[in-house]
Amino acid sequence: MPTATLQGLAGQHVVLVGGSSGIGLAAAKALVAEDAAVTLIGRDPTRLAAAQRTVQGVNGAARVQTRAVDIHDEAAYAATLAGLDAVAHVVLTAGTAYLSDLIAGPSLDEQFAPLASRLRGALVAVRTLAPRMPAGGSFVFTGGLSTERPVKGAWVTGVATAAAEQLARVLALDLAPLRFNAISPGWTDTPMWDPLLGEAKSDVFTDVAAGTPIGRLVTAEEAADAALFLLRNRAMTGAVIHVDGGKRFT
Amino acid sequence: MPTATLQGLAGQHVVLVGGSSGIGLAAAKALVAEDAAVTLIGRDPTRLAAAQRTVQGVNGAARVQTRAVDIHDEAAYAATLAGLDAVAHVVLTAGTAYLSDLIAGPSLDEQFAPLASRLRGALVAVRTLAPRMPAGGSFVFTGGLSTERPVKGAWVTGVATAAAEQLARVLALDLAPLRFNAISPGWTDTPMWDPLLGEAKSDVFTDVAAGTPIGRLVTAEEAADAALFLLRNRAMTGAVIHVDGGKRFT
Amino acid sequence: MPTATLQGLAGQHVVLVGGSSGIGLAAAKALVAEDAAVTLIGRDPTRLAAAQRTVQGVNGAARVQTRAVDIHDEAAYAATLAGLDAVAHVVLTAGTAYLSDLIAGPSLDEQFAPLASRLRGALVAVRTLAPRMPAGGSFVFTGGLSTERPVKGAWVTGVATAAAEQLARVLALDLAPLRFNAISPGWTDTPMWDPLLGEAKSDVFTDVAAGTPIGRLVTAEEAADAALFLLRNRAMTGAVIHVDGGKRFT
Amino acid sequence: MPTATLQGLAGQHVVLVGGSSGIGLAAAKALVAEDAAVTLIGRDPTRLAAAQRTVQGVNGAARVQTRAVDIHDEAAYAATLAGLDAVAHVVLTAGTAYLSDLIAGPSLDEQFAPLASRLRGALVAVRTLAPRMPAGGSFVFTGGLSTERPVKGAWVTGVATAAAEQLARVLALDLAPLRFNAISPGWTDTPMWDPLLGEAKSDVFTDVAAGTPIGRLVTAEEAADAALFLLRNRAMTGAVIHVDGGKRFT
Repeated sequence: MPTATLQGLAGQHVVLVGGSSGIGLAAAKALVAEDAAVTLIGRDPTRLAAAQRTVQGVNGAARVQTRAVDIHDEAAYAATLAGLDAVAHVVLTAGTAYLSDLIAGPSLDEQFAPLASRLRGALVAVRTLAPRMPAGGSFVFTGGLSTERPVKGAWVTGVATAAAEQLARVLALDLAPLRFNAISPGWTDTPMWDPLLGEAKSDVFTDVAAGTPIGRLVTAEEAADAALFLLRNRAMTGAVIHVDGGKRFT
Repeated sequence: MPTATLQGLAGQHVVLVGGSSGIGLAAAKALVAEDAAVTLIGRDPTRLAAAQRTVQGVNGAARVQTRAVDIHDEAAYAATLAGLDAVAHVVLTAGTAYLSDLIAGPSLDEQFAPLASRLRGALVAVRTLAPRMPAGGSFVFTGGLSTERPVKGAWVTGVATAAAEQLARVLALDLAPLRFNAISPGWTDTPMWDPLLGEAKSDVFTDVAAGTPIGRLVTAEEAADAALFLLRNRAMTGAVIHVDGGKRFT
Repeated sequence: MPTATLQGLAGQHVVLVGGSSGIGLAAAKALVAEDAAVTLIGRDPTRLAAAQRTVQGVNGAARVQTRAVDIHDEAAYAATLAGLDAVAHVVLTAGTAYLSDLIAGPSLDEQFAPLASRLRGALVAVRTLAPRMPAGGSFVFTGGLSTERPVKGAWVTGVATAAAEQLARVLALDLAPLRFNAISPGWTDTPMWDPLLGEAKSDVFTDVAAGTPIGRLVTAEEAADAALFLLRNRAMTGAVIHVDGGKRFT
Repeated sequence: MPTATLQGLAGQHVVLVGGSSGIGLAAAKALVAEDAAVTLIGRDPTRLAAAQRTVQGVNGAARVQTRAVDIHDEAAYAATLAGLDAVAHVVLTAGTAYLSDLIAGPSLDEQFAPLASRLRGALVAVRTLAPRMPAGGSFVFTGGLSTERPVKGAWVTGVATAAAEQLARVLALDLAPLRFNAISPGWTDTPMWDPLLGEAKSDVFTDVAAGTPIGRLVTAEEAADAALFLLRNRAMTGAVIHVDGGKRFT
């Protein structure tokens, strides 16, 4: 139902930071399925190459690029983004859960780093790309369940997701008419959990599923679908989509 | 990108309470465009007939029914809903803005009525239809900007929208795995405003547009698009989509 | 530290609806301890008389009145309130938890009643007393944990507490410079739980205490203390105090 | 009304970071008025000495200490805090409004600094003092109106206040039974505004007052009173007190 305000994403160029796995990869697949062009940004060239093959497999006619860069190397990351042409939208899904003990854990610098890095990764992308993006272009940041339901032991993540969601609100004002939104995924079955949960993953996921109103975890495809909704619908700005199967209230 | 969790709405039967104009009508058009069947419920047979023609015009092959009933007549309304077959989703957009002075205005009964009616209209629909709906079926209620940005003089509306949004949260728990969500539209250019604003409508809308990050009002199509996202994405429950152009933060 | 904006409550007349037990009674005791005058309103004359003795025992010099009336009898309730002189503040703590099954439970009228009654009890008090209250006077409504953490099976309570909290926000705008606030108590050890939990109360309370950051339930005195803070501090309006021991996030 | 759960602050040692002016200074005065001991921490020895005289003037018998240190020098700041004995509570009010243009403004490092510094100032204090604080001890952080009503041009402040408020929530879980809360002051008449508003201050304040339900700005005493409530009431943790005169909803 394309109208002046409700347009498809065909032909638009979308940058996916953290696009080689999980929600980012699922978003790339959904985007090329509707004829958008995508650039996947990640750290690991091997994983990026595999992701590129997967995405291209969904739509052989789509333009699928990759750029390998570490977003913690801000100069290299900014240079990479600056080299992209005609970007309409940016989706940032990089960011991991981080457990630490504020008192007895590693140095404050070490604990603060994941928080600063999630925010700065978003801010570098905005500074670099926003000036060249068209009206109606948008950014989607990734928050999470830990904003409203912080997890004991994960204070860093709890502040990082809240700050990422707030960033969407403040930039929606500061940089209008560009649009800024966030998704807040609940427990999603993605590779992010492998290093954190290890062999316990299966049991943890069974428990989480039982305690979620929809009776299962969120899929990466569903979380990605929420991001695409935010790209498409040009009345959406300063918003957070809680795509969590109702887990937030249990 | 149909998966087990991300299905289209083709072939599904969606009931639209308040479907003869505004957001409800826009939702009906978007639904039949993707081959859903719709039943429009409204009070005025003439407006319903016109709406039916409009919706059928979008997709001549779609099943488009109407039912004329006043939702304030709860017995008739429940009977009408009970007569519908195989409902998958329900979208309730009935509800108007209401200005009153709690102290000097009409009786408490009169002021309380629009609030009770918005809630009871939703509750009657849930009681009647939920027991027969399939897993993954869903309700979408309509809240509004006045939850987070109440308007002086509109206390009734401010409580009604907050209660409608909360209803989505509590029923998401109580009646899982059915799903319950809400849209919270910002200033939307719909017929609802005509009796409230009259000739001032154009000036008011110009002012509102200038003060909104997207620089314009939300369209009924955009608000409807948010509702359809909630119907489709089966990880969404207990959620509120603020489709307001960022107006909430200005 | 009395200043123009931070005054004590000595000599002020505070009406406590639901003042014969629990948080209301605790508030009455705290109020007379700082030389306020109180009127306790409740349904049961015997319990009111006992409450009056308790409160008067805290401060024999304080003015402690009671009025027995059923707030569901709105005409009698309004007449009772209208008969009170020089009211500065009103604290409403009436309201109970209510479990029901929206689908299979009693009639919608019966389930809706506790929700309507909590709101209407507040609205009748505002309509009757607000026109005679001094600038800086205030109302405190009672919400609850079920706004942000609804309990499965208690949809009525979940909507009622959210609506009560929202009422504080909308009336803060509509009826300024009168002030309207709410307390949102967590699990508080009050007689309200006796009929709901019966013999299980002790076990339930032990579990709740263990799962609360402060390691125990909230006391009625602490919840009342939050209400008194709201009466005293004249910058507080449209606010909700979550006095819940951190339970909201667990 | 001292009970096991509701104790006064007499004899307790409270550290005020940012205690030489504004809300921190007002809190110090209110604290010594009820016989607490205070340590004022600030950067400027001259202002600290003046503040000490003011606070001691409220209660000559109270213990009033000062420590001059720049909280941006984290090692010196931590060493200063480590040298304090028997701290029961910490109130952090340091933090200023900061206007910048994310795109065209100074370097990202420069814009990010005020945000990082507000968070790190809180985190250093918690790491240093929490292990030695008694159960029921607490921290009060300072958020602000810009969490829910971000100001165009002040994205840094909007993220900083939201993060400070979220820090209270996550640490309430991680470090229980210590308590962590925040105040979110509205427009308060403090020296913080002098460098930002200059000669326009009087006009700006008149406009803000007119647009606030209480018809005036919040006083530093009122904001401080909210902080003291949070120190005293041991059921309060993970909470944010919006002491803003209702400005949040206008």
